[in-house]
Amino acid sequence: MAKVTVHRKAHFNAAHRLYNSDWSDDRNATVFGKCANPHYHGHNYELIVAVKGEINPTTGFVMDMKELKDLIAEEIEEKLDHKNLNEEVEAFKSLNPTAENIAVVIWNILRKKIDLNLELIVTLYETPRNFVVYDGE
Amino acid sequence: MAKVTVHRKAHFNAAHRLYNSDWSDDRNATVFGKCANPHYHGHNYELIVAVKGEINPTTGFVMDMKELKDLIAEEIEEKLDHKNLNEEVEAFKSLNPTAENIAVVIWNILRKKIDLNLELIVTLYETPRNFVVYDGE
Amino acid sequence: MAKVTVHRKAHFNAAHRLYNSDWSDDRNATVFGKCANPHYHGHNYELIVAVKGEINPTTGFVMDMKELKDLIAEEIEEKLDHKNLNEEVEAFKSLNPTAENIAVVIWNILRKKIDLNLELIVTLYETPRNFVVYDGE
Amino acid sequence: MAKVTVHRKAHFNAAHRLYNSDWSDDRNATVFGKCANPHYHGHNYELIVAVKGEINPTTGFVMDMKELKDLIAEEIEEKLDHKNLNEEVEAFKSLNPTAENIAVVIWNILRKKIDLNLELIVTLYETPRNFVVYDGE
Amino acid sequence: MAKVTVHRKAHFNAAHRLYNSDWSDDRNATVFGKCANPHYHGHNYELIVAVKGEINPTTGFVMDMKELKDLIAEEIEEKLDHKNLNEEVEAFKSLNPTAENIAVVIWNILRKKIDLNLELIVTLYETPRNFVVYDGE
Amino acid sequence: MAKVTVHRKAHFNAAHRLYNSDWSDDRNATVFGKCANPHYHGHNYELIVAVKGEINPTTGFVMDMKELKDLIAEEIEEKLDHKNLNEEVEAFKSLNPTAENIAVVIWNILRKKIDLNLELIVTLYETPRNFVVYDGE
Repeated sequence: MAKVTVHRKAHFNAAHRLYNSDWSDDRNATVFGKCANPHYHGHNYELIVAVKGEINPTTGFVMDMKELKDLIAEEIEEKLDHKNLNEEVEAFKSLNPTAENIAVVIWNILRKKIDLNLELIVTLYETPRNFVVYDGE
Repeated sequence: MAKVTVHRKAHFNAAHRLYNSDWSDDRNATVFGKCANPHYHGHNYELIVAVKGEINPTTGFVMDMKELKDLIAEEIEEKLDHKNLNEEVEAFKSLNPTAENIAVVIWNILRKKIDLNLELIVTLYETPRNFVVYDGE
Repeated sequence: MAKVTVHRKAHFNAAHRLYNSDWSDDRNATVFGKCANPHYHGHNYELIVAVKGEINPTTGFVMDMKELKDLIAEEIEEKLDHKNLNEEVEAFKSLNPTAENIAVVIWNILRKKIDLNLELIVTLYETPRNFVVYDGE
Repeated sequence: MAKVTVHRKAHFNAAHRLYNSDWSDDRNATVFGKCANPHYHGHNYELIVAVKGEINPTTGFVMDMKELKDLIAEEIEEKLDHKNLNEEVEAFKSLNPTAENIAVVIWNILRKKIDLNLELIVTLYETPRNFVVYDGE
Repeated sequence: MAKVTVHRKAHFNAAHRLYNSDWSDDRNATVFGKCANPHYHGHNYELIVAVKGEINPTTGFVMDMKELKDLIAEEIEEKLDHKNLNEEVEAFKSLNPTAENIAVVIWNILRKKIDLNLELIVTLYETPRNFVVYDGE
Repeated sequence: MAKVTVHRKAHFNAAHRLYNSDWSDDRNATVFGKCANPHYHGHNYELIVAVKGEINPTTGFVMDMKELKDLIAEEIEEKLDHKNLNEEVEAFKSLNPTAENIAVVIWNILRKKIDLNLELIVTLYETPRNFVVYDGE
């Protein structure tokens, strides 16, 4: 059967700051600039989750988009939307919430919930001008 | 010569319903939800056709975008635009017109018309939030 | 207090055909072209609902966007999403479902549900290239 | 001379929470839901500043867009970008930083810096799905 | 009948430079900066033409979008697309082709071709970040 | 460490014409149509530069986006923005400035400035409807 990649867009709004707890405040400010602001700033994260696999010949689907939409809502939006990533999300207690690391965290959460016959690719827009892609490589 | 992927956007508007004729109406409604509505619903399909190949040193083109635009107009828009995919398009008489299957059908049509030295990738947006990619794999 | 216009985006997918039941099929085909296709075609309608009024000094809101979002979901998306506008929506039994008329129908529905101290403006995209605005004038 | 409205887009990223300091935490949570999260959340604010006036016949400009771009950078982006609106921006010490109020604050700042012969309209996207417009009315 | 504003998007690509022939080259360079480059630069102009009027009760249209699309193609795209505005377009032989002036020129051309019962508004994007609106005022 | 692709958007406006100096003017006009206009036309080029590599565990970055933004500004925008590509950019004195060739030129410039442990991919939109991708293959 043909292999197709299906994509679903979602979004969440969150506060964060870039911060390495092994470093002094001065070093954080030097490396991360205004992104290190201790009072936080925030983003509208736009998320595209893609799964690649064979089309199921009885449904014509690679994966039911309603299921994928619900999975993203429960596993990602519920946990990250309107949150302070540094203070309220376990994964970022000891991991700097850069776009790169957030994408990897999202991929790791979703990978456990999606059929392993399907490849998984996560695209995360931190702003309309900056975005990252992670495919588990 | 350098290999570049060139992309051209196009679009068509069509009605469809998701339906497996081997199933009862009840099963169709259970699996496809409101997408199985027997009165149809519709979409503005946004299509991106990409071809990848070596740059022709005399033109600087991988493929003339005017030719690709015209090819998409004749082979895809002419056949699918303002149509009911289930009732009026031969390919979907026995194939469920999911985004995945529509992308494969489009790829198969275009593959016959584009130089085999060029790779072909079809991206189809069913809505701004759902899209699929097929590269013939 | 300052008067501000707040906007909320929503969307629905529907099938329709352009058709005047007072005319012959030939005349419908002549006037509406392929939009008169009796098998229907469809669109992803993108809707922007705007309300203009004074900022409430205790909330800082003109209108709670969550309320507006829920109102659009119940009154518009529930009634129009994944429907055949001509066959399944009462308002279009005798009214041609052009973008203009759909916008007026949406405005009339919402006008009854939104505080009359607030002005109401409806923007409806039939495609990313065609859209209409109605403000009740 | 013809009157034209010229628009310039800009953007800033900020953290905020919705909060009325005259209310209990419970009442804030009831009215503002997850937007009241005391740990803050954030947005990529996209800003469109419009000025309307007669075309200057010697330049063909209503206002030099470079000047407007620089004015927005100095007066708005410098003050709001990568900031916590509630904690770090004087105007929101006692004013709830809803999109409506942020738009009014931006308008008031810019109004003092732009020729009074020019009308001023501020559009602020809090998310791609929610936006507000303020014209000083 | 309800009055609705209908919009149609179009586009053209053109070269231009900002230049006032009454001024020295130095003064042009000072006022217009790199936009005065004598070798020209260029833009993808995105154009939105809006007409406002009563819905025709027999068609449901304010104006047939196909007619508006064809009118824009003939009167605007044919004249401006892939042209050097300063050198090849009569209107800009003595008029600086700023976005403001181009919008007024387009409005004046279309105003002669569109029913005077319909209001006409022209929006012109010089870039995705700079745009102007002219309504004949 | 996980390998992530990070992307940064930028833009420049330029004039160009398609032209092969080995050909007669007639042949250029035949092959390139109105793109061969000797008076030039132009585009808003939107550029996405992507780099793929391992996340640096101390910063959480693949590459600092501020550095990438500054690099694009200095090496690409400074050289191409508001320029006539054919007349003012050395690389296109003898190379036809098609989107394909511009992407390759940009890639070659950036490749020399970015750590060779990072893969580099350049996406260039000539218009919102035509775009190309080059990854050095």
